Amino acid sequence: MSEPCARAAHEARQARAADVVREAAVDPGRTRALTDVLSSSEPPVPVVTDPDVLTAHARDHATFCPVGVPAALVRPRTTAAVVAVLRAAARVGMPVVPQGARTGLSGGANAVDGCILVSLEQMNRILEIDPAEQTATVQPGVTNAELSRAVEAQGLFYPPDPASWESSTIGGNVATNAGGLCCVKYGVTGDYVRALEVVTADGSVVRTGRRTRKGVAGYDLTRLFVGSEGTLGVITEVTVALRPRPAPPRTAVAFFPDAPSACEAVNAYMSAGAQPSMLELMDGPTLEVVRAYRDLGLPADAKAMLIARCDDKRSAADELTEFLRVCRSFGAEDALLAEDAREGDLLIEARRLVGPAHEARGAELVEDVCVPRGRLADLLRGLAEISSRHGVLITCAGHAGEGNMHPSIIFDRDDPTATRAALDAFDAVMALGLGLGGTITGEHGVGLLKRGWLPEEAGEDGMRVQRAVRDALDPHHLLNPGKVL
Amino acid sequence: MSEPCARAAHEARQARAADVVREAAVDPGRTRALTDVLSSSEPPVPVVTDPDVLTAHARDHATFCPVGVPAALVRPRTTAAVVAVLRAAARVGMPVVPQGARTGLSGGANAVDGCILVSLEQMNRILEIDPAEQTATVQPGVTNAELSRAVEAQGLFYPPDPASWESSTIGGNVATNAGGLCCVKYGVTGDYVRALEVVTADGSVVRTGRRTRKGVAGYDLTRLFVGSEGTLGVITEVTVALRPRPAPPRTAVAFFPDAPSACEAVNAYMSAGAQPSMLELMDGPTLEVVRAYRDLGLPADAKAMLIARCDDKRSAADELTEFLRVCRSFGAEDALLAEDAREGDLLIEARRLVGPAHEARGAELVEDVCVPRGRLADLLRGLAEISSRHGVLITCAGHAGEGNMHPSIIFDRDDPTATRAALDAFDAVMALGLGLGGTITGEHGVGLLKRGWLPEEAGEDGMRVQRAVRDALDPHHLLNPGKVL
Repeated sequence: MSEPCARAAHEARQARAADVVREAAVDPGRTRALTDVLSSSEPPVPVVTDPDVLTAHARDHATFCPVGVPAALVRPRTTAAVVAVLRAAARVGMPVVPQGARTGLSGGANAVDGCILVSLEQMNRILEIDPAEQTATVQPGVTNAELSRAVEAQGLFYPPDPASWESSTIGGNVATNAGGLCCVKYGVTGDYVRALEVVTADGSVVRTGRRTRKGVAGYDLTRLFVGSEGTLGVITEVTVALRPRPAPPRTAVAFFPDAPSACEAVNAYMSAGAQPSMLELMDGPTLEVVRAYRDLGLPADAKAMLIARCDDKRSAADELTEFLRVCRSFGAEDALLAEDAREGDLLIEARRLVGPAHEARGAELVEDVCVPRGRLADLLRGLAEISSRHGVLITCAGHAGEGNMHPSIIFDRDDPTATRAALDAFDAVMALGLGLGGTITGEHGVGLLKRGWLPEEAGEDGMRVQRAVRDALDPHHLLNPGKVL
Repeated sequence: MSEPCARAAHEARQARAADVVREAAVDPGRTRALTDVLSSSEPPVPVVTDPDVLTAHARDHATFCPVGVPAALVRPRTTAAVVAVLRAAARVGMPVVPQGARTGLSGGANAVDGCILVSLEQMNRILEIDPAEQTATVQPGVTNAELSRAVEAQGLFYPPDPASWESSTIGGNVATNAGGLCCVKYGVTGDYVRALEVVTADGSVVRTGRRTRKGVAGYDLTRLFVGSEGTLGVITEVTVALRPRPAPPRTAVAFFPDAPSACEAVNAYMSAGAQPSMLELMDGPTLEVVRAYRDLGLPADAKAMLIARCDDKRSAADELTEFLRVCRSFGAEDALLAEDAREGDLLIEARRLVGPAHEARGAELVEDVCVPRGRLADLLRGLAEISSRHGVLITCAGHAGEGNMHPSIIFDRDDPTATRAALDAFDAVMALGLGLGGTITGEHGVGLLKRGWLPEEAGEDGMRVQRAVRDALDPHHLLNPGKVL
């Protein structure tokens, strides 16, 4: 793997893949050939070419990412059908874009020109829940909500809870290694994936991992596929670990006169060994956007809000009382513990409304940096400086407990100057996150949106290893070409 | 990556690597060339060729694994020195075997003929402990005990605790994804690795992962190197996550009239949502071996012992009282909760003595299957059947809480018939573990000992992906050739 050689080989592959995309886009003969092959495959797989359907499936929720024109859509119901699709795609030379519910925020599920969209939404069966081993095995199109509710009925708990959990699929969650509100205590999707069935670019069906809690037989291919955003294989089955269902959480909130003080409170509380099940921060601009959207009676002068939850049956009240004490010692003025679940839900209403309130303001670019928790205050200060320098509104809310924040750049999409300023601010936020020892993406993924930034984080030698892995598993760059790398 | 082609290419590489090993073994010129290159490298790296020193470093703690004759030993102190060694090895054509403290149990650190042993034991500095982010960054030769004590002094906790923790190194723990007693609550080494610095076969220095709790930028190369047993790169720096220090554990024990009942008690207790920090099982033959070694006053008729610990400050006593209730309901006769830490330590003395008591009996082959917890009783029944069928003594102790058991086959190494029977029993145990839906190795790794069994678990398509990854990162099979794959 000498560098110039490997790089040249990888680039030649990318160029060939780009040629395939271009040729496929202008070559309806390929779509006809695909339809022919798949109509006689075992099982036959219907190929959808209705332009309206294709357009409706062409993109995820990302802003600013190119959207190609797909040539076809398939909705396989079995692993055998996925194998047939990948073999047919290789045979006729069409790129493959796997899709879950397309709730992603980085363009990872966007169509490329001339591709086959492979929607896994109809592979949506829960295959097994094993209460003794505390695992569940599902097809990739099962939604996070369906899995969560099914295991809850058996007294169990599937922690990963991305904001899209009602509609996003487990396959998509695994492909992006999705996070959520629970991560501060429970970790991310990848921490719960024990085994996968994956169809690789050559149509092989690979089973990775195992059902057991521990296992070190061979390379950890499971974790290699987790978060690979559809570039290494199509996930067709997932076995996840479950946990005992925790107690209903208690909730506390605190309002601060400035955001850096709230960050310092987060640090002090966490450094002392706290284990909240949620610890969210909303900064001043976020509170203003929420106030403008709905009157929740938020204190008029608050410039930051912390929300903490604890789900430990015995210690929740004590933990949150300590949280309130720490918050007050860092200048929090209003700070209170919810009496019961109903009041707790009211207190987190402000957090729930962050998304809708921002959508109501028009276009936004949602960022996803994660910094070491000790640098949170510096992140907030840096965002204020970027907002001022580029003349754009930046709000910031997110998972303060683990340093994973979502700065949102709000701008008028119809104003080219504002759009340019938003893009410049986006780059400045990436650079800020990296400069603070953080990452360009804590939980949303690279997709198309951050592909240009990945080498800044991974380094040239790291990129070379990533490319070598990609080339080894998908030498013709058939799968989701142009994403991630 | 068409199958026959990739397989043939991989086998050709293996054959070439085997040629290199054979040539190096009979070619003192290579060692002289290596010494020349490394004496003028920057930094210069001393090359040890003293046969006594080489012999002392030639193997780990595995039974039944071939041990080659090394040509040289180096003890780099810096990443630059590791780079120099790997470049020199590639230049003169010598295979490289990375080593930590050589406490492994599967031959992963054993010399191959004509290799350079690269001992990382002198890269033994703790580089940083970050109490805000709760991480530590160390060189690979730091022992688990050194790291554990250093972070404990700051009120923090590094959970992974393999039995060898006093002497095994963090680099070795990462390379084998080591487990331990804590896994039932706290997981394994890989769950704590956030970032690595790795020197790959071409002498590149790759930084993987990040310091932050979350991050999804690019493929998870960190987890790819974790558990790769020195076949993909040499680990030169490790950043691990830490946790708040838990309360001192409470301890309870229960004795059963038969082992399957103890297994059912484990299942019932865990399925109800318990979260012990340790849950160990010793079967009847294990108790007999320990009794013969030292009189601890263990009940004479007990045929299984469970030990549970809980380190939750508020709920430990309640959790363990429930444990004892469950044990009694499954037939436990003696069952008690330790009054204090001293009594707790006395109660687990039997578990601590399993190793020394077995060593005193002569040769043993320590197995490491992990099965779904619901199949533990079947595992114990199967072991009794194998013991009887092959006429060998098999004891079984281990981490019942996660189904990871260590059957030990005890035999007389000087008796060829007994040795043959032990090897047959070993194969039968592997087959039993796989047949119960488990894995051939929960925490010890594949190394040389289980290389022949890996394809049984990973399947042909899985092996093909593993080989493709190996070939992509180390195309000349320079690193630890013949191990794992």
